[in-house]
Parts: sequence; C-alpha cells; structure tokens
Amino acid sequence: MSEPSSRRRRGRTSGRTVAPHRSAVYRHLRHPFAPQSVFSDDEIANLHETALRVLEELGLRILLPEAREIFAAAGAIVRDDMVYIGRDIVTGALATAPSGFTLNAANPDRALSYAPGSLIFKAGAGCPNASDLERGRRPGTLEAFEETLKLCQSFDVIHSFGPCVEPQDVPIQFRHYAMTRAQLTLGDKPMFVYARGRGQVEEAFELIRIGLNLSDDDFADGIWASTNINTNSPRLIDRPMAQGIIDFARAGQMAVVTPFCLAGAMAPVTVAGALTLQHAEALAGISLSQLARPGAPVSYGGFSSNVDMKSGSPAFGTPEMTRMQIGSGQLARLIGLPWRSAAGSASNAPDMQAANENDMGLWGCMMSNATLVVHAAGWLEGGLSFGYEKFINDVEMLQSLAELCQPADATADAIGFDALAEVAPGGHFFATAQTMDRYETAFYTPLVANLDNHGSWTESGAKTSSERATAIWKDVLTQFSPPVSAAPVQERIARLISDHEKRGGTLPLD
Amino acid sequence: MSEPSSRRRRGRTSGRTVAPHRSAVYRHLRHPFAPQSVFSDDEIANLHETALRVLEELGLRILLPEAREIFAAAGAIVRDDMVYIGRDIVTGALATAPSGFTLNAANPDRALSYAPGSLIFKAGAGCPNASDLERGRRPGTLEAFEETLKLCQSFDVIHSFGPCVEPQDVPIQFRHYAMTRAQLTLGDKPMFVYARGRGQVEEAFELIRIGLNLSDDDFADGIWASTNINTNSPRLIDRPMAQGIIDFARAGQMAVVTPFCLAGAMAPVTVAGALTLQHAEALAGISLSQLARPGAPVSYGGFSSNVDMKSGSPAFGTPEMTRMQIGSGQLARLIGLPWRSAAGSASNAPDMQAANENDMGLWGCMMSNATLVVHAAGWLEGGLSFGYEKFINDVEMLQSLAELCQPADATADAIGFDALAEVAPGGHFFATAQTMDRYETAFYTPLVANLDNHGSWTESGAKTSSERATAIWKDVLTQFSPPVSAAPVQERIARLISDHEKRGGTLPLD
Repeated sequence: MSEPSSRRRRGRTSGRTVAPHRSAVYRHLRHPFAPQSVFSDDEIANLHETALRVLEELGLRILLPEAREIFAAAGAIVRDDMVYIGRDIVTGALATAPSGFTLNAANPDRALSYAPGSLIFKAGAGCPNASDLERGRRPGTLEAFEETLKLCQSFDVIHSFGPCVEPQDVPIQFRHYAMTRAQLTLGDKPMFVYARGRGQVEEAFELIRIGLNLSDDDFADGIWASTNINTNSPRLIDRPMAQGIIDFARAGQMAVVTPFCLAGAMAPVTVAGALTLQHAEALAGISLSQLARPGAPVSYGGFSSNVDMKSGSPAFGTPEMTRMQIGSGQLARLIGLPWRSAAGSASNAPDMQAANENDMGLWGCMMSNATLVVHAAGWLEGGLSFGYEKFINDVEMLQSLAELCQPADATADAIGFDALAEVAPGGHFFATAQTMDRYETAFYTPLVANLDNHGSWTESGAKTSSERATAIWKDVLTQFSPPVSAAPVQERIARLISDHEKRGGTLPLD
Repeated sequence: MSEPSSRRRRGRTSGRTVAPHRSAVYRHLRHPFAPQSVFSDDEIANLHETALRVLEELGLRILLPEAREIFAAAGAIVRDDMVYIGRDIVTGALATAPSGFTLNAANPDRALSYAPGSLIFKAGAGCPNASDLERGRRPGTLEAFEETLKLCQSFDVIHSFGPCVEPQDVPIQFRHYAMTRAQLTLGDKPMFVYARGRGQVEEAFELIRIGLNLSDDDFADGIWASTNINTNSPRLIDRPMAQGIIDFARAGQMAVVTPFCLAGAMAPVTVAGALTLQHAEALAGISLSQLARPGAPVSYGGFSSNVDMKSGSPAFGTPEMTRMQIGSGQLARLIGLPWRSAAGSASNAPDMQAANENDMGLWGCMMSNATLVVHAAGWLEGGLSFGYEKFINDVEMLQSLAELCQPADATADAIGFDALAEVAPGGHFFATAQTMDRYETAFYTPLVANLDNHGSWTESGAKTSSERATAIWKDVLTQFSPPVSAAPVQERIARLISDHEKRGGTLPLD
C-alpha cells in the first residue's frame, strides 16, 4: 500500500506549501508533558468511590433487555429497567479491559497505538450542518461528508476518521453504506462506524472486511473500526448505545464510552459532581463491554463541560471544562485506561472566540495527557456545524502541538558555541554555518498564519486568517486524489452495497 | 486608599457584566500547574555552562563607559568597549539577586508578589500604533495611551501597567512626564518607567514619589517602578539600557533584563543556541545590576522566538517559541530567580491566527511557570500595533487562566452524592439544592464569548467576537472613572511637571 499523497500535498497553494515538509512525523505522536492534577490523589479516590456508590446504590436505567440480562448474569441487581452494578463487577471489568491496543488502518503507517501516552487527533464530529465562508451554512450532505474526509486525509496531524458531517441527503437506512464507502475509498486512516443498531453495525463491519480484503480472522484479530458511545446523562443508556457496546466488544472492535455531562443541566453544577457522574456512567459502559467479551478494546471517555448560565446553552473551552479534562485524566490514570477527551467551540463563526475555546480544550488535553482528542478541528456551534475555515486554522494549532512532541535537540552542535563565536556583537546569524545547515528545517512552516508586515498584508487584500483559510481548503479539495490503495476498494464493495440497497437497506435501532 | 471601581465596573454593557463577578480574586494569582521541561537537567546545566563561556571568552560589547568601569572594578577584563565577564562575577550576582520581592502599587491590594510561583499579566507593550475596528490603525497618541491605561485599569486580570502605546504626539523630551502622569492619575496599579536615560528616569521617580506622597525613604525602601531592559542581541548592551540597569538598581527599583533573541536572525537558528545567547545576555545584565547595588530587585527575562523563514519577519506563538519559553523557565529555576516571558501575535488582525499565537504563548507561560507575562493582551503585528478588540478577546483567555488558579473543590458537598440521588435517570439538575445554592457563581461568566444558538446569533447581527469586542471596549472607556485615590495626584504633580516643561524637558540618552 504505497502512499503517494505526501508528495502530492507538497504542491504549492498561494505560494505556500499546504502540508509542512515534515508532516509525516505528525503521524505518531506521544505526549511531551507530564500530566497535571486539579484534585489530590485522595480526592480522586473519593470521586471514584462515590461513582461506585452511584452504580451500586442509585443504579442506571438501561433500556436494552439484552444488556440487562448480561448484567444480571454477572450478579447485578435488576429491577424493571434499573440495573444496580456492584463494585465487584466494575473491578472485574477494569481487570480485563486492556490498557492499550493498536487501531489498524488501510495504510499500516497510519495504524495508531491507542494507549496512555499516545496523542491522537480527530476532527470535529457529529455535525448536522457544514459551513464555510464561500457557501455559507447548510445542512450536511454526502458531498460535505466526503469533503471533510478529503480534508482529514490530507493532513497527517488528523490521525483517524470520524463522522464530521451528517450526510442527511442519504436516507438513514442507506447512510451507513455511504459513510463506510466514503472512508474506504477516499482515504487510508482508521475508520469510524456509528453504533446505530446491530444491523447497520454488522453491515459496516462486512464492508470494511471486504473493502480492505481482510479474512474473517484478520478482522476479528485486530481493530478496524471504532465507535463512540454516549450515555444519556444522567444514568441512562439507550438501546442503540447498549447494543453498540455489546456488538463492538464481541467483534473485538473499539468502543469509546463517553458520557456527555453538562454541569448545571444533565449533570451536577460542580466540577467534582459532574466528574463523578461521568465516571460512574463510563464505568458502567466499560463493565458492559467487558461482560460482553472480557478483554475487548474499550476506552474511557470524558466530555464534560458546563452550560452557560445566561443562555442555558452548552459551553466549551471554559475553565470548568479544562478542570474536568484534567480531573478526567486523573480518573483515567487511576483505573489505568487510555481515555478520550475533546476540544471544540460554541462560537458561531471562525473567530477569536472559536480559537480561544478550541485552544483551551486542546491544552486541557495536553495537560491531562488525553489519548484521543475528538473535535480537535472544525467543530463550531457546539457541534451543530463543521466549519471549513475553522478546520484549517485549528490544524495550524494541531501541527504546532505536534511539533512540541518532537525531540528537542541540545547537543553541542545545537547549542553551537562556534556559531555564537562567529557573529560579532550587534551582528546577525543569517550566514553562520549552523544557520546554513539548518534553516530549511529549523522552524515549523505555517499553514495559514501570515507573517507579512502590515503594508504587505494590506496590499494583498487585508484578509483575516479565516478568509485566507478559504483558499487553502479549496486548494486541498481541488488537488485531492485518494491514495492508490483505495482504488480497488470501490470495485470490491460496490456489488455488496448494491445488493443491500436493493433489499431496502437497514434502519437504525430505535 | 479605598477602591470603589469594582462596584462601578459591575454596570451592565449590552446586557452583560464587563467584569466577572469574582474578578477581585484575579488580582493575586499563583501558578496552578507544575512546570514542564524540554531539556534534561544535564542539558540545561550545559546551556548555562556554555552561556558562562560566552561571557568569559567571547564577551559583550557594552557601550556605556560607566558600566564598563563597574565591570572592570569587579575584575572583568575590559578591552575598548568589550567586556569579558568571569564566572565568579556571575556567581556573585546570582548570590545577591533576590529571589522575590513586592511590587508596590497606589492601591495596596494591587501590590504584587514578584517571585517564583507568582503569575502576573501585563498588556501588550511598546506599540507605535493603535488599532481598532472603528477608527482603524493609526500612530500612537497620548489619547490612545490613556485609553489603554483605562482598559488595563478596568480588568483585574491585568496586574500591572506598561507602555502599551507610544504617545508619539508628545515630544520625546516631555513624554516621560505625560506617561507617568497618566499612570498616576488614571489608575492604581504597579507602574512602568522607560529606561531612556538617567535624566528622564530620575524625573519619573520624582513624579511617582510626589504623586503617591511617598517620602524619600518610602520610595527607596520599596519598589514603585519597574522597567524593561532589552539587550541588543547578539552580545551588545547600548547606553540607555546599561544606564537603566544601574539607575534602577541604585534606586532599588525593578529592572527586567530581557534579551530579545530571534532565532535565525539576531540569535542562532536552534532553540538551544538562541536560549544560550539569551541566557548569557540576561546574566550579564543581572550581573551589572548586582554590581551597581547588591540585592537590587532584578528579574531574569526571556523573549526568544524565531523568524519566519519565508518573510524574514519575527514570528510569535510558534512551537519553537513555546519550547524556548519552557527552556527559559528551566534556566530561571536553575538560577533561582523569578522570570519574565511573553505572549503576543504577529497577526495583522484580531482573527484566529491572533488568538492561536497568543494562546500558544500564554500556555507556554503556564507550562514554564513564568512569573511575569508581558504582551498578554492586545499585542498585534509583532508589537507594531495595540489592538483594542484583540485586547478584549485576550482578556477573556486571561480570565479563563485566572479561573484555573482558583482552588478546586472536591469536598463531599461538591461531589454531592445527594444531588446525584435527587435526579432520576434521564432527568436534569436545574432544580437540585446543590444547583440552586451554587449556580450564580459556579461558572466563569464570559466577557465577549457568545453562547447563543446560530439563529439568535444571526438575528443579533452575526457579529464575530472581534466585532462584539468593539462595543465592550467602548463601553469600558465610556464608563471609566479613575480610582478616588488618584484624584489628589494631579494637583500634587502639576506644578512639578509644569516647571520641568518650562525648562525644556529632558531628552533621552542616545
């Protein structure tokens, strides 16, 4: 599976290279900083203990009978649709849940280690709308979803695919075919499958197996798909989510259990309270996964933030969210699992608010050593819109963070006493041997940042970074061609999809 | 010196409070996170050692004879205007330089502890131009300088005054009177004095003494003014800067010795090399300070970044700058001194680039535990312009960071098992006792961020956060009145300034 796209992406756009010359080193990142704390170890132990009490004494409402039966068989107390999960069940699940595994991809060099210490970025996901400065805001379509995949494929710092935009023009019973096909034929990164019921999930798995030419054993022995499981906070797991946990576990594919706890609305108004609820719900999902199949790849997830007390709207990139991220990292370390966090913005436009909120979330992930950072680029309006210009500007920040993951050089040559001696007081280093040897690769090359002085910038149209980003995403889309490995995939899956469609497709589970 | 302004600032603007309800807790911040490293301890020791070799073997060009004489008297080798500083001199200086001290202010509650662990924000400084979306970009005037002081005074998270905009309409021989008077009469925060020669510095000190009604001993016994000393990298200290170090030291006022090392231009192209040069120059300035007066309050400073290799322009908020910040923090910890870093942006507009670059710099300061963060708000065009809308948006980020400095609550009440038990699965927490008790103060209240949904946002004009910021800074300026403590100051200093002006003022030192 050769990969010509890095050469292709070096084409110039508006006089600048879209992908930085060393983007390939962005493919596999490890956290460069020690994780931080907001609570003491005792306090974190107390949050964990309280979460266990929540599961035992308050219980969860679990709507899928099959899931309740699995819990009952493991000794949980089930009354109607309430399930009370003893701490022995949780302890057992944490003992079998793996602390790390590999996410496979069509391109082996894009496979990812999913384990504590890894740093994986995904673009904004789940957006019903797409927006850009040229075409405005519009409901998500398959064309928009495919465009977002092309954008994600084109930047090495976006590590894995996700459902950036919901293709609402594809009927829901056919949508999983279109979304899986698009990922298989436009790129070669780890793939995402929605947990919208067993029928759709099994068909998506089948498409991946056939599309990537995997035997049943190949597929079963590795992770080729991942999904996100959102609990319905507080303390409720709906049917498709519960079934998704079971089905991904049994198929050996990855489920990320991510309560979405909005402090002050569906979660307690305090950071500690919202985290406790998040932790209880995540442990419930992880327990179900491990009961369905011990050792199944499952990730702890946290996406807790707060509502804006003025509008009641969800807020992102707030200081409360940052604290919850750091606290989530502490809880994930306590139970020894990799974990998922998020960035994102509530802003309606690709403006300073959008950048500041996203940056708070991203740095919250850096400070907490999040394994997976979802919504890292392009997520506007609290997820109601995928913004193309925001995506490009966010990628700039992700590439900057990826640079911080590279080794720092303090060899004698790097310190360079000779170079210091070579330049007279008040002189310059433009022509030192050290500079000449290194200047082409010494610094990160900006993607959208403009370093012109005010005069030159004004002469070239006085464009903001969002306005400049329009030309960049257009250029990426214009220049895009899929990796050669994807070429035979379409042929392999076309007949299968056609047959499924003729039979009327498969509706989601209610 | 009572302080009624916090009440005043609670006036509503466009339906929202300008200053957050708990802004007073932003006045004294301590770093919440452990400092990070980019180099090993051995590597940092090697950088330090190489910097000592630079001072001993390569020397510095020091243009002020008085400074050379001070070094010579301490045993340094002086040849023409080159000074070779032995490590014993540096070691002696580091032994007498205090590791912390207090910066006084007209309002005692705004006095600052300047010591490792403190976190102090200053606005963008040294800008020859001012810009806002209403009046455009224009050369700095006294009116603009006064406006920036009013903005800085109005937000508790801006801790200390600085020369945000250069009042170019005031002749240079009178400018220090105008800048000192403005700080004395518009606010009550720690003050800044430019080191533009002994004559101007002594007159500014006199104005502060008289303006704040301090005896000579009061002034001499405390720190009432600070200045910034920029070396002329590489390895050159000009006359006003050298004189400033001496004069501030002898008067017991604070000098921040800040080499401005641009990797690839006036400094080596490598992070390690630029840091080594920065360190050598800072140590030279600190040594001069301590030779002029052992124990004088002096701060280590680092403002190293890199040039953009395409345009040759200075770049800010780059990953290289972040690494230099973290490395600077390591060097400052090695020598045991408080230290100054910076944020800022090279962008020409208050856009996503401006936010992303500033955020990289701010988080670099958080990761490195910088004591003083200069250019934290409003610095556009690499310092060529002070942007009002950027200031407001940056203050949002500073307030968010200030929130992270507050203690996190994980008491049993905060965890709130009872609140969790109170809400049924799938319910909400709006009405729990815990929420009712806390909702008014639970979350940071945004200053400029808009959390409306897309429809409401569009109906109210679809304004970006920069466009919304215009109304906010205008409102702050309209509502501004100086603290009552400043009222008698004008009277105390008017005659003195008038006398100085009649005598023709005082020109800077060349």
